[in-house]
Amino acid sequence: MDVQAWLAERTPLVDRALEALVPKADEEPVALHAAMRHLLFPGGKRFRPALALAGAEAVGASPEDGLPAAVAVELVHTYSLVHDDLPCMDDDDERRGRPTVHVAFGEPVAVLAGDALLAAAFEVLAAAFDPIHPERSALALRDLAHAAGSHALVGGQVDDLGFAGSPAASAGSPPAEGAALARQIESIHERKTAALIAAAVVCGARLAGADDETLLRLGAFGREVGLAFQIADDLLDAGEDDPCTLLRALGPDAARARADALLAGALARIEGLGEPAERLRELARFAVRREQ
Amino acid sequence: MDVQAWLAERTPLVDRALEALVPKADEEPVALHAAMRHLLFPGGKRFRPALALAGAEAVGASPEDGLPAAVAVELVHTYSLVHDDLPCMDDDDERRGRPTVHVAFGEPVAVLAGDALLAAAFEVLAAAFDPIHPERSALALRDLAHAAGSHALVGGQVDDLGFAGSPAASAGSPPAEGAALARQIESIHERKTAALIAAAVVCGARLAGADDETLLRLGAFGREVGLAFQIADDLLDAGEDDPCTLLRALGPDAARARADALLAGALARIEGLGEPAERLRELARFAVRREQ
Repeated sequence: MDVQAWLAERTPLVDRALEALVPKADEEPVALHAAMRHLLFPGGKRFRPALALAGAEAVGASPEDGLPAAVAVELVHTYSLVHDDLPCMDDDDERRGRPTVHVAFGEPVAVLAGDALLAAAFEVLAAAFDPIHPERSALALRDLAHAAGSHALVGGQVDDLGFAGSPAASAGSPPAEGAALARQIESIHERKTAALIAAAVVCGARLAGADDETLLRLGAFGREVGLAFQIADDLLDAGEDDPCTLLRALGPDAARARADALLAGALARIEGLGEPAERLRELARFAVRREQ
Repeated sequence: MDVQAWLAERTPLVDRALEALVPKADEEPVALHAAMRHLLFPGGKRFRPALALAGAEAVGASPEDGLPAAVAVELVHTYSLVHDDLPCMDDDDERRGRPTVHVAFGEPVAVLAGDALLAAAFEVLAAAFDPIHPERSALALRDLAHAAGSHALVGGQVDDLGFAGSPAASAGSPPAEGAALARQIESIHERKTAALIAAAVVCGARLAGADDETLLRLGAFGREVGLAFQIADDLLDAGEDDPCTLLRALGPDAARARADALLAGALARIEGLGEPAERLRELARFAVRREQ
């Protein structure tokens, strides 16, 4: 089965779990619950949930074992988009061809819907407690909370917001500054994008019983795939306007070469996992080579 | 030892734990970490942490057993204040005699500092995992996530924001409408204030090994104390300007009578817990009778 067929089969699993876990739009307060659902249904590519399911599969378990991680990571991702779009952040009016949450429901409800999505992510993982393997959900929770926190997702977003005004971002830098600039940009993407993508793989595998050494490999794989994914995203669409992209810092050829190198590095990390990790590899290639 | 002396002894315990768990203000991104600390140090009364410690004590354990719950609940409370103060919400410039977080650090960093405080709360509780009693932190996490979510804290805040414009809030209501109005206000306070106060008591007791029946009693106690605490707060200061208070809906005498009745009900809930719960009782009386 190719990766697109696998995604077509697995995504409804994630959608159904999200549908069951997020309060219905007719539950009070209806504006809040409708706002929480606005960006979740229909969602995006469900790439992070797919990685969580494939992370479980990679350690010889059923993809369903990673489902609570898949749902939790998608809730964190969705909360972060709702807050990123706010007028005081990126001030975006549209996402995925529809009005953003604050345009549709107002700014206060958008802030609070993001807050509630973040809390819901942890509620889902807490509910995945398994008395036979109690440490699995506890450690997945710790990983997800760290990935959502000030040293990862939120810290990356803060530095991304401050980036446009930083001296390193000024145009016409000489080559030495270009390399420093590229490192600075990758540090932001590592926290803002890659940490949550790595948490998806790791948490999915954790719930499925992965050992510590495998989790280290999967974490490194996820971070490299996350960085490559961000470059691919910027090459596809957003990069032209955004100063905080490798595309702007290095140009398209060097950016694409960096994405390919990151992908190759990521694949090398999980070479030893053999056939069960094939879906992870396919997802990584699919995510990074979308534009080609 | 009276309750003020007990608070003076226990609050530094909470402050030290918060100090150790929240990233230092010189860690990158420094603006984010300084903003996360702005409202935490110096904090408020640390009433919710005190309830978590007293909840542990009430079931015969050491107050320290409730410390991770105390810290986590204070982080959730602080996040909620940071977001409530935002220009798009209550638009407050000052809190506890100092500039609010968005005034001191700007609105984007304030939104993100709140987000990171919420994630940190769950990280703290996930780290409290005890392999001998693994279900304790898992269930505390579930309770806290629920108390922070769309059916509790966030839902109450959404309805509070919408309240000023609702027909029931218009002045000069006849008595029948007054009763309906009071119920509506209490539903908001039950979610916005009381759910987290109840979670403080329950999570502290959970980490200390409370049984299910005791947890039910402590949860009911916490909700009633939380509602009474809100009335006391409104009688003390904020109530005059805020349409969403029992003080405005019922007048000061009836509001004070309601607080006393709630307090009496709360104390009755935990009568059977005997001497170990004495600190909880003292905290409840202290919180509700501050103004007298």
